Amino acid sequence: MVVKVYGPAYASPKRVLVCLVEKEIEFETVPVDLIAGENLTPDYLKLQPFGSLPVIQDGDYTLFESRAIIRYYAEKYKSQGTDLLGKTLEEQGLVNQWLEVEAHNYHPPLYTLVLHTMFSGHMGVVRNEQVIKESEEKIGKVLDVYEDRLSKSKYLAGDFFSLADLSHLPFTNYLVGPVGKGYMIKERKHVSAWWDDISSRPSWLKVLEICK
Amino acid sequence: MVVKVYGPAYASPKRVLVCLVEKEIEFETVPVDLIAGENLTPDYLKLQPFGSLPVIQDGDYTLFESRAIIRYYAEKYKSQGTDLLGKTLEEQGLVNQWLEVEAHNYHPPLYTLVLHTMFSGHMGVVRNEQVIKESEEKIGKVLDVYEDRLSKSKYLAGDFFSLADLSHLPFTNYLVGPVGKGYMIKERKHVSAWWDDISSRPSWLKVLEICK
Repeated sequence: MVVKVYGPAYASPKRVLVCLVEKEIEFETVPVDLIAGENLTPDYLKLQPFGSLPVIQDGDYTLFESRAIIRYYAEKYKSQGTDLLGKTLEEQGLVNQWLEVEAHNYHPPLYTLVLHTMFSGHMGVVRNEQVIKESEEKIGKVLDVYEDRLSKSKYLAGDFFSLADLSHLPFTNYLVGPVGKGYMIKERKHVSAWWDDISSRPSWLKVLEICK
Repeated sequence: MVVKVYGPAYASPKRVLVCLVEKEIEFETVPVDLIAGENLTPDYLKLQPFGSLPVIQDGDYTLFESRAIIRYYAEKYKSQGTDLLGKTLEEQGLVNQWLEVEAHNYHPPLYTLVLHTMFSGHMGVVRNEQVIKESEEKIGKVLDVYEDRLSKSKYLAGDFFSLADLSHLPFTNYLVGPVGKGYMIKERKHVSAWWDDISSRPSWLKVLEICK
């Protein structure tokens, strides 16, 4: 059974793609054009009632929300490919903790920054310099916590690469690339080493190549 | 070993408390006064580097982020008390999916609404009627999706009470209580029946009693 992943051109679905590559799971991608409103058609809304990306179909099983999807595959194929969950329930707890930090502390200001720098003029977004400044400050504070954490362990949840690190890849790739704020990573020694490490994983390079 | 839960007076820690009651796990609570800034002391920041609530200590294991904590205990004590995860990996995937929906679609506008109605004048919040109106509209759209979903299954992830439902309790309790917008629940038949069901569970009534 080949897993269908909707919306590979966008960042959140890339969380799913890099997870599937790490877990050595076959997949195919289905383009969805947000600018053209393809996420708001009745057929798409049957799969994802909020019109968000990504969604996957695996046989007759449909699942949405990128972090729920990556948890599902990391658990289902625990012993295949890279273990992304940790060995014990306590390690898994820390993976979930830092995945929640990514979702609630890191992602929201970074998403706002991406909208105001990369998607200004689309989807009703008007670039606002004050919002950009405030978002950068918020991201900086989170990265300060990461800097301290990564001075004590190689990855966020411990000395093993996990879903918590993986989940940072797509939007941090925007931050250091088209958003033009790579200095926020570079000026923090441990965050910078961590980013160089995770962003050079073959899985991520493969996803970037597939989605070119 | 008794689990220590920090900040029982606030909403997010109540996610943890109701989960512990459902799982029949002993706990004690440690008050943290946000208005007095007790969440920003060096000792607290060692436990939770962002100064957020809740955090738990279980022997020498420390974990923060309410949804990571409830996942940890639901998994660790899978066969004790109420099963909050579902029987199969596919059910567990749907539990995680709707828990993510609660976290990303439902919670942010509700949190904003709570800040602007209940905590105006504290923590730098100034009541803004436009923000209140927009938050209510966003919550309404999410509740419309829930109404459709709950017309097809008794609970969000299926016909079993799970972490996905449980996670809605503390902030929806604010919505129907001090925020004064219970009509948003009442005017949706299936959401209303679901709310009556989950908010009358003995576990939730016990948490409200403990935290009086």
